[in-house]
Order: sequence, then C-alpha cells, then structure tokens
Amino acid sequence: MSIPAIFRVLIVTLSDRASRGDYRDLSGPRAEERLTVFFALQNWKYSIERMVIPDEKDTLRSLIEESARNFDLIFTTGGTGIGPRDVTVDTIKPMLDKEIPGIMEYIRVRYGTEKPNALLSR
Amino acid sequence: MSIPAIFRVLIVTLSDRASRGDYRDLSGPRAEERLTVFFALQNWKYSIERMVIPDEKDTLRSLIEESARNFDLIFTTGGTGIGPRDVTVDTIKPMLDKEIPGIMEYIRVRYGTEKPNALLSR
Amino acid sequence: MSIPAIFRVLIVTLSDRASRGDYRDLSGPRAEERLTVFFALQNWKYSIERMVIPDEKDTLRSLIEESARNFDLIFTTGGTGIGPRDVTVDTIKPMLDKEIPGIMEYIRVRYGTEKPNALLSR
Repeated sequence: MSIPAIFRVLIVTLSDRASRGDYRDLSGPRAEERLTVFFALQNWKYSIERMVIPDEKDTLRSLIEESARNFDLIFTTGGTGIGPRDVTVDTIKPMLDKEIPGIMEYIRVRYGTEKPNALLSR
Repeated sequence: MSIPAIFRVLIVTLSDRASRGDYRDLSGPRAEERLTVFFALQNWKYSIERMVIPDEKDTLRSLIEESARNFDLIFTTGGTGIGPRDVTVDTIKPMLDKEIPGIMEYIRVRYGTEKPNALLSR
Repeated sequence: MSIPAIFRVLIVTLSDRASRGDYRDLSGPRAEERLTVFFALQNWKYSIERMVIPDEKDTLRSLIEESARNFDLIFTTGGTGIGPRDVTVDTIKPMLDKEIPGIMEYIRVRYGTEKPNALLSR
C-alpha cells in the first residue's frame, strides 16, 4: 500500500436526532479533531469532510457506494447499538472486502469493565 | 424500547447429561439466581422459567422458535464449546436479528488469562 | 474427543517473500519450538511437518483440503493482515466446521495496547 498525496477522509455521523437538528452532533467533530492530530503527527496531507445522516439503511448504503470512489478513508460514528434503528453495522458489513474485528473488540473489552453498555456496541 | 410490565424470562440449559439426569444442572439455577438479584435491584417485575434439554440442534431450534412469542428474554447456557455435540452457537446464530459479540468477547478475554479454556467458548 | 496415539501436526507459513527465499521464515520454526515444548510437557507423542507457501488462495485451499486427512492439527502463520495479498483468513474461514474466535481475540486485546498493529490482525 502506498500513501496517497492527500488522504481524502469522510466522517459520517448516523443519528436521527442530530440529522433533524434536535441534537448537536458531538462525535463527528470529535473524530475530526482526533484525525487532525493524527495526520499532523504523521506529517501527512489530508482533507476531511463531515456529514450527518439519519439512521436509514438505504441512505447509508448509497452514500458509501458513491463515496468509495472519492475518499480514501470513510469513518462512521453512531448506529452501532442494538435498537431497531441501529443499522450501521448491518448495512456496512456486507459491503466490506475485509473486516477488521480487532478495533471494536478492543474498545469493548477495554471500556466494558467501567461502562458495561460498551459491550453492547457492535 | 419500552420496559414490559413483567419481563418473561426463559433460561435454557443445554446438556446431554443433565437432561438424562446423570448430572445436576448447576448453571441454569445460577443464572436464575443472578437474574433474580438483577431484577430486584432494578425494581422490575419478572417471571423466570427454566428448562434442561439435550444438546440437539432440532430440539433447541424448535424451542427457541416457539418461545420467541411468549418470552421477552431467552438465555441459554451450555453447548458453547468445540465438541461435536456443542451445537448451541451454530443453531442460534442464524436465528438472530442482531448479534452482540461483546458479551462473550468480554468473558473470554477477562477470564482467558487464568483459565485458557475460556478462550475456546464461542 | 480421544487423544491420538501420535499427534500429526502441520505448520504452514504463508509468505510470498519467504517462499521465494527472499527472507527467512521465522514464525514457522518458532511455532514448532512452542509446540515441541507443549507436547513434551503433556507427554504426548507427535510429529511436526512444516511448509512455506506463497500468499495464494488456491495453493492454501488445496493444501488444507489434502492435509485434513493426514493431520490432526494444522496451524497457519502469516497472511492475516489487511493487505491485498493477506488471504489466509478469507480462505480458511469458509472451510471451518467451528470457528474459535477467542484465541485471536485474546492475542489482539492482550497486545493491542503496546502494539496497536496487533489490532489489525484478523
């Protein structure tokens, strides 16, 4: 794998409430902040775009399909719980070439002792 | 999700030996005990039923299909190892709408250092 | 499960570079060393064979199919990352009767804090 001249990054927040404006998206901006620090430390060029969409399978699937060509990295945040509207994992899993289970695993196990709810994240 | 007026809970122990009476089921009663404490602390109403069945795919599948209508929560214990008769995971996984990997993950990683056998549980 | 009179063990290293001789296979011999100690401690008889093959789906699949009859245990090492040539997991997963997720999970979570790259192993 070679490093692109500019990493084009998309951050997608899934949240019915945030997409309606009932609620401010906090995790998207937080992800952007963390990535900004990361890229600066690597001394890699990047551009970051952010979107907030409702918890809708079709909306998410189309967005990922279209974005796959124009972005090097796509992050999603939200919609990973077990509620009926939490569709992120179910939508994206069949679209992956390779799944990397270790990152979510690590988050769950690392935080599950203090915050048992973390264990429900998928 | 709303909380039901009464949580109807089913605990299913899978064990050839316990279902034949060769062996006393310890994990079913232990699960009931833990749930009883949990519901009392939440101040939620509940009813708990327990069953012991052999490690049989068809028996388990039919039981889950029938019980899905009459119970809010179904717990199984046993049959999660790697022996040829350990069919619980293989039977139930295709029946799930959403799998929550984090709970078993946590149990395996948490206890795997002292008890490497825990790593074989699925 | 009964213990065979002699455990016939196959260790397969997947590595394009090692199979071309550009690079010495270190993980195969290391796995053999660890298994030798393990079997000695158990006082179990064993025979160990080792092979180094390129990161090729078809080569690996054929090898496993043929070896399944002649070996009691098959270990693979290598090809578990996320590069385009890392095909071990994708090739073997569909061939398994039962997957044991806990061992890789434990390795990832245990070493992921010091070596974040471990989280990318599948």
